[in-house]
Amino acid sequence: MRVYNFAPGPSTLPLPVLERAAAEMTDVNGTGQSVMEMSHRSGAFKPIIEKAEALLRELMGIPANYRVLFVQGGGSLQFSMVPLNLGGIEPGAPKKKATYVETGIWSKKAAEEASKYLDAVTRASSKDRAYSYIPVAPAPAPDDAYYHITLNNTIVGTKWPSLPETGAIPLVADISSCILSEPLDISRFGLVYAGAQKNLGPAGTTVVIVREDLIGRAPSWTPALLRYDIYAAEGSMYNTPPCYGIYIIGLVLEWLKALGGPVAMAKLNHEKADLFYAYLDNSSFFRSPVEKSSRSLMNIPFVSTITDSGHRGELETRFVKEAEAQGLVNLAGHRLVGGMRASFYNAMPIEGVKALIAFMEKFEKSEK
Amino acid sequence: MRVYNFAPGPSTLPLPVLERAAAEMTDVNGTGQSVMEMSHRSGAFKPIIEKAEALLRELMGIPANYRVLFVQGGGSLQFSMVPLNLGGIEPGAPKKKATYVETGIWSKKAAEEASKYLDAVTRASSKDRAYSYIPVAPAPAPDDAYYHITLNNTIVGTKWPSLPETGAIPLVADISSCILSEPLDISRFGLVYAGAQKNLGPAGTTVVIVREDLIGRAPSWTPALLRYDIYAAEGSMYNTPPCYGIYIIGLVLEWLKALGGPVAMAKLNHEKADLFYAYLDNSSFFRSPVEKSSRSLMNIPFVSTITDSGHRGELETRFVKEAEAQGLVNLAGHRLVGGMRASFYNAMPIEGVKALIAFMEKFEKSEK
Repeated sequence: MRVYNFAPGPSTLPLPVLERAAAEMTDVNGTGQSVMEMSHRSGAFKPIIEKAEALLRELMGIPANYRVLFVQGGGSLQFSMVPLNLGGIEPGAPKKKATYVETGIWSKKAAEEASKYLDAVTRASSKDRAYSYIPVAPAPAPDDAYYHITLNNTIVGTKWPSLPETGAIPLVADISSCILSEPLDISRFGLVYAGAQKNLGPAGTTVVIVREDLIGRAPSWTPALLRYDIYAAEGSMYNTPPCYGIYIIGLVLEWLKALGGPVAMAKLNHEKADLFYAYLDNSSFFRSPVEKSSRSLMNIPFVSTITDSGHRGELETRFVKEAEAQGLVNLAGHRLVGGMRASFYNAMPIEGVKALIAFMEKFEKSEK
Repeated sequence: MRVYNFAPGPSTLPLPVLERAAAEMTDVNGTGQSVMEMSHRSGAFKPIIEKAEALLRELMGIPANYRVLFVQGGGSLQFSMVPLNLGGIEPGAPKKKATYVETGIWSKKAAEEASKYLDAVTRASSKDRAYSYIPVAPAPAPDDAYYHITLNNTIVGTKWPSLPETGAIPLVADISSCILSEPLDISRFGLVYAGAQKNLGPAGTTVVIVREDLIGRAPSWTPALLRYDIYAAEGSMYNTPPCYGIYIIGLVLEWLKALGGPVAMAKLNHEKADLFYAYLDNSSFFRSPVEKSSRSLMNIPFVSTITDSGHRGELETRFVKEAEAQGLVNLAGHRLVGGMRASFYNAMPIEGVKALIAFMEKFEKSEK
C-alpha cells in the first residue's frame, strides 16, 4: 500500500508517473527497449531528452538566451561548478569576490566550497536565530563575480520572500527544493540549479539553467565535466547523461503541464501550506520555528511546545514512529537540526496534508 | 516486442531485472514507496545500497583493504578524479608523471584530461594501426604516480590479454565495458572504475574500487565531489547518491549471482564471442579488424570486405537499417570509427548472437 511520504528529497513522485514508468519499463515508445538500455545517441533517446528540455522551457518560461543543461552530481557539485565557471578565475590574477547569503546549512556549504576558488564573502546571515528567517538582502560589491542565494532552504524551511536586487551582478540561486513549485522569473537570474530529487525526478540528475553570456569562462584546468561550456556545446552529451533520470523528469513535466503548470501548482501548494501553517499557528502543542514572512511552501519544520527544542527527544521519536505506523512517513527533522519536518512537494496531494493534520490532532490530544 | 539490443552502452539489461523493477516501481519491499522516492538516509534505502556493495564485493572477490565507492559522472569524471586523487599533486612541487597506454579514444581522452594535473606520459600506443591491437606493456618510470590502462576498449573492440606488471606503481584501469564479464584479480590494481551503463545498470552511476592507502591524497582545492576520501568517509553519501541506479545495480548483481557469477559469465561470454569471431573469420564478406590476441569479449567491431573500410558507406547504412527491421538494433560502429559493431554484454543471451549471425549470413548472400 502506498504511503504519504513527507521526505525532503528524494521525495514523493506523482503516482501516474511511476505507473507509466513501470508500464514502459521493458518497452518504451515501441522501441522494444527500456530507456535504461538505450544508446544515448540513438534516435530512440533523442526525443526523450528533447521533450524534457522543451517542457522545462515551456513550463518555466525560460528565455531563449538561457541554456538548459543536464548535469550529474546534485546541487553539491554546483557548489564547485558555479565558482569555477562564473568566478572570473584567471592565472596570476588575484582572487575575485562573490556574495553569499547564509540562510542555512546548504548555503553555508556552498560558500565553503566556493572559498577554494575565490573569496566567498558572506554578506548576510541568519545564523544568529538558527536560520529561522531570511535576512535583509545585502548589497553586492560592484566587482562581485556573482551573488549566490539558496532560494528555498530545505532543512530550516525558509524561502526568500522576494529576490534580491543585484544590478549587473549575476544572481545565482539554488532552487533545488522549490523549482516549479510556483512561477519564477528566470530572467532575474544569471544561473539557477536544481537537483532533481525533490520536485523533478530521481536523484542523480541536476538541471542547470544559465544565461549564455556566462558560459565559457572556466579556467583551463577545470575538470571537463565541471565546465558549463562543454555541456552547452555537446547538448549535455559530452559523455553519457543520466538517461533514465532525464526520462522521468520528462514524465513529471508532462504530468505537471496537464495539471496547469507552475501557476496551478502555486495555488495548490499555497492551499497545502496555508492549511498546515494555520494548524501549527493555532496549536498549543506544535509550533513553527520559522518567521512568518520567510516561510517555505515546500518544507515545514515544526517542534512541540512541550519540549520546544530542536533536539530529537523521546516525544519526537515517538511522533515519527506513530506517524509511520499510520502510513505517514519520513517526518523526522534533518539530522543536524532535529525536531520534525513535513515536505509538501508538488506530488504531495492535499489529502496527505489533511491526513497528517488529523494524525497530529489525535497525537496532541493523547499527550494531554 | 523486445529487441536484441547490441548497443555499446547504455546497453541491454537482463529482462528479469527490468520486470522486477517494474513490479516494484510503486512499492518496493513493502515500504509503500518507489526507490526513487526514498530518502537516501532512510532505513528503507540502507539495505539497498548495502546489498549492492556486498554483492559486488562477493562476486568480484574484492579484498577487505579496498573501498567500493558509488560516484556520479561516468568514466569520464574518473579521467579527472584519478589524477586529482592519485597524482601526488603538492603545492609548489613540480608535476608528477604517470604512465598512460593509448589503446583507443577513451584512453586518449583519459590522458588528455590527466594532463591538466600532471605529466601524463603515453609510454605506448597502438594508434599506428588504428588501435587494432594492444601494444606490449611498457615499463613504468620508477617515480610514476600510477599506470593507467583501459582494460577493454569499447569502440575498437580490444582487450588486454594479460595485465601489465607495474611493480610498486599502482595500476589503474577503466573496466567500464568488461566489469564482471569474467573473473578479475582486484588485488593487482590500485584502482578500477566502471560506468554502470554497460554490464551493471543504468547510466549515471559509476563504481570505483580503490585500495585504501591510495585514498586521501587529493590537493585541498579539489572539488569536494571529486575527492575519494569524502566518498569513503561518508559511505558514498556526502550528498544524495544516484539511488535508483544503485538499486538496479543490486538487482543485476542478484541476477548475476544466481547464474553463477563471473566464472559462469566468462564461460557464456566466451561461447558468444567465439561463435561470432568464428563466423567473421570464416566469412568472405565480413571481417574483424582486430588482431586475434587482442580481441574483446564484449565489443566486436566488424567491417565488410567489400568496402573494407571504417567509413559508414551505403552498405553499412543498409546493413544497420535492415538488421533493425529484424529486431537487431544498435549495430552501427562508433561515430568516430564507422563500420559496424556488436556488443555482447552479460545480459545478451546467446540466442541474440545466433540471430545476428543468421541475419548476417542472409545479408551476405543477398549481396552476392
